[in-house]
Amino acid sequence: MTTLEQMGAAAKRAARVLMNAGSRKDDALLAIAGALRDHAAAIIAANRLDLENGRAAGLTAALLDRLALDEGRIDGMAQGVEQVAAMPDAVGRILEGRTLKNGLQIEKITVPMGVIGIIYEARPNVTSDAAALCLKAGSAVILRGGKEAIHSNTAIMNVMRDAIESAGLPRDCAALVTDTTRQSATELMQLTDYLDVLIPRGGAGLIKSVVQNAKVPVIETGVGNCHVYVDASADIGMAADIIYNAKTSRPSVCNAIETILVHRDIAEKALPAIKARLDEKQVELRGCERTRAILGDCVVPATENDYAVEFLDYILAVKVVDSLDDALDHLARYSTGHSECIVTRDYSAANRFTAGVDAAAVYVNASTRFTDGGEFGLGAEIGISTQKLHARGPMGLNELTSAKYIIRGEGQVR
Amino acid sequence: MTTLEQMGAAAKRAARVLMNAGSRKDDALLAIAGALRDHAAAIIAANRLDLENGRAAGLTAALLDRLALDEGRIDGMAQGVEQVAAMPDAVGRILEGRTLKNGLQIEKITVPMGVIGIIYEARPNVTSDAAALCLKAGSAVILRGGKEAIHSNTAIMNVMRDAIESAGLPRDCAALVTDTTRQSATELMQLTDYLDVLIPRGGAGLIKSVVQNAKVPVIETGVGNCHVYVDASADIGMAADIIYNAKTSRPSVCNAIETILVHRDIAEKALPAIKARLDEKQVELRGCERTRAILGDCVVPATENDYAVEFLDYILAVKVVDSLDDALDHLARYSTGHSECIVTRDYSAANRFTAGVDAAAVYVNASTRFTDGGEFGLGAEIGISTQKLHARGPMGLNELTSAKYIIRGEGQVR
Repeated sequence: MTTLEQMGAAAKRAARVLMNAGSRKDDALLAIAGALRDHAAAIIAANRLDLENGRAAGLTAALLDRLALDEGRIDGMAQGVEQVAAMPDAVGRILEGRTLKNGLQIEKITVPMGVIGIIYEARPNVTSDAAALCLKAGSAVILRGGKEAIHSNTAIMNVMRDAIESAGLPRDCAALVTDTTRQSATELMQLTDYLDVLIPRGGAGLIKSVVQNAKVPVIETGVGNCHVYVDASADIGMAADIIYNAKTSRPSVCNAIETILVHRDIAEKALPAIKARLDEKQVELRGCERTRAILGDCVVPATENDYAVEFLDYILAVKVVDSLDDALDHLARYSTGHSECIVTRDYSAANRFTAGVDAAAVYVNASTRFTDGGEFGLGAEIGISTQKLHARGPMGLNELTSAKYIIRGEGQVR
Repeated sequence: MTTLEQMGAAAKRAARVLMNAGSRKDDALLAIAGALRDHAAAIIAANRLDLENGRAAGLTAALLDRLALDEGRIDGMAQGVEQVAAMPDAVGRILEGRTLKNGLQIEKITVPMGVIGIIYEARPNVTSDAAALCLKAGSAVILRGGKEAIHSNTAIMNVMRDAIESAGLPRDCAALVTDTTRQSATELMQLTDYLDVLIPRGGAGLIKSVVQNAKVPVIETGVGNCHVYVDASADIGMAADIIYNAKTSRPSVCNAIETILVHRDIAEKALPAIKARLDEKQVELRGCERTRAILGDCVVPATENDYAVEFLDYILAVKVVDSLDDALDHLARYSTGHSECIVTRDYSAANRFTAGVDAAAVYVNASTRFTDGGEFGLGAEIGISTQKLHARGPMGLNELTSAKYIIRGEGQVR
């Protein structure tokens, strides 16, 4: 048995206990929150090693800031775990039920997934956030973070496992893969005997690797080539506000937009107004020929590739389209199915857009930046699914559960 | 572009039309039903070729019977399609919704999957059954049947595509992969640019190949190593009736049982009664040492493998267990998570079993044979999912849909 197979087997055993752990899950979460605060000094010491290694490896100031932990951030992690503990249980909800003519009583009830794997690249706080959500959802979790945060993640996980055990649950309810080679990620993607689902949290490269290599069921997350379409009837001020917000409030996240499509009948008036707003943040525009004819040479000529990529930066592609149908065709080709928006005053155009766009979140006259578990009212989220199977859009606790049928009879046979 | 990529691209274009086809889907289904009846003679002629090839290849009489079509069976296929047409639309159901504090109105609405792939081995009637369900669910479908039925399937698909076109929808809403090599199945499993989900319908070998090769999202179906546990407090007559029904009413299907577990305190009385019922159908028993001590040498000694496989035949493995916990441990090890049953008169034992067994359908005092979309009241089913992601248990129309969020605002930004 490889190390990962041993981890998988241990997680599966722990998952059987967690399946019916009831309120002991919350006890464990509160123990984790307390332990994170109690051991903040040890976690910060481990984090210092990661920061030193990061500096030596030449990480940018922005990346080092994302990596850094202090007492305030650790308290924030603990608060996050406490918020998860306070949420209602997602397990054991009866979704539907009926009595059949033969007297069988059938009900469909939510149950834990079992063992959840999560591959992530980002900040060390994901280690406690993700583990807390999985635990609350009744599943054991195997985490594999990035090598930049390995010392921090290891320290956090050790604190969490001790706390889980102190609350009377198996410490293997949560585990960290400490081997941060690409090989260990690939092996985790193929742990079919033990993993019920794998959730990759990261950029397009990680998602692509998962699609190519995974043999376990996967929920893809987080790749967003998002658009705003400015309809012929749009309120230009509203369009400029929404585009400004959706592009510049946080360009590095998946619900930020990458391209705007502007109806030709409004382009001449709308484009200068939109550009004026975006100039406040020095957003680089890459436009089609018609865009450049209106805005001039300050707009870089857009290539095919500019419409296909996530810039995740202060760059925006611009295209003038002939009609709503043209916009829908563009989206059918380039959208990653995350979040798409129409700005319009036309009732039918709004309806045609919401019906015709195949994405997790389709907006009329609102910023795509709202695609978020917290904003949607789901509580904490584990990621934003861009696939159609099982979960689509922000995934909260409910999306981390499965279901089963329970059928009660008095000897019925078929 | 390979042939399959071309089919995928055509299906994706058709899916965009189907997405909002509304009642035209039902028009197409009724056209299909009529066309199947009108072209019964041509379908039967094609079927005759498959039967001749099957006889030459030495197919068993049972397999030849499953393959054979006549006017009655084709009329049955047409009726099945008409029943699907009569079902309520699964697309456009508003699952939930709310108004956020900032005034955004958010709703979650069911939408089609897009393009569904189905690999199947069985009877030619699956060609029209599966296509009808996918079409009704608003998705285009690419079918790949077995080589034994290739002439029948091709004839049925041609009739269906003409009928779909006559109803004003793209004929590429349904397509058949006529290359029945293993290569074409593998290529379909990896058609990531075009398939939103793949549903394999077949035995353990097909499912294993899909797990190993698929790069598209998959819903596993149909492998059932199902059990009846006879608790210490069971009504022995009821236990014998349920076991007899679950084993012998149709041994070749996935919801038939393969092993019974009998509590030691009731084994001496229960096993002879159970054996007496099973003897009516000459069921071969393969038992543990304690079973053989009670029933004698007529019971074949069970190997480890006997507890792990689906016999799909008149063979039943038998094991005496020390406790309900022992039974749960056995299930945690060998169950494929399909259907499991306890026979008991003990209230707490029933609750512990339903809570402790991780399977799509968990029964108290009823036959596992009820795990079926029709029996559960879901209407026609596309298969029985044994995975935890997206769908678990019988999959009807609802399980063939995805969802999206629609968010309506008046210019809100974050």
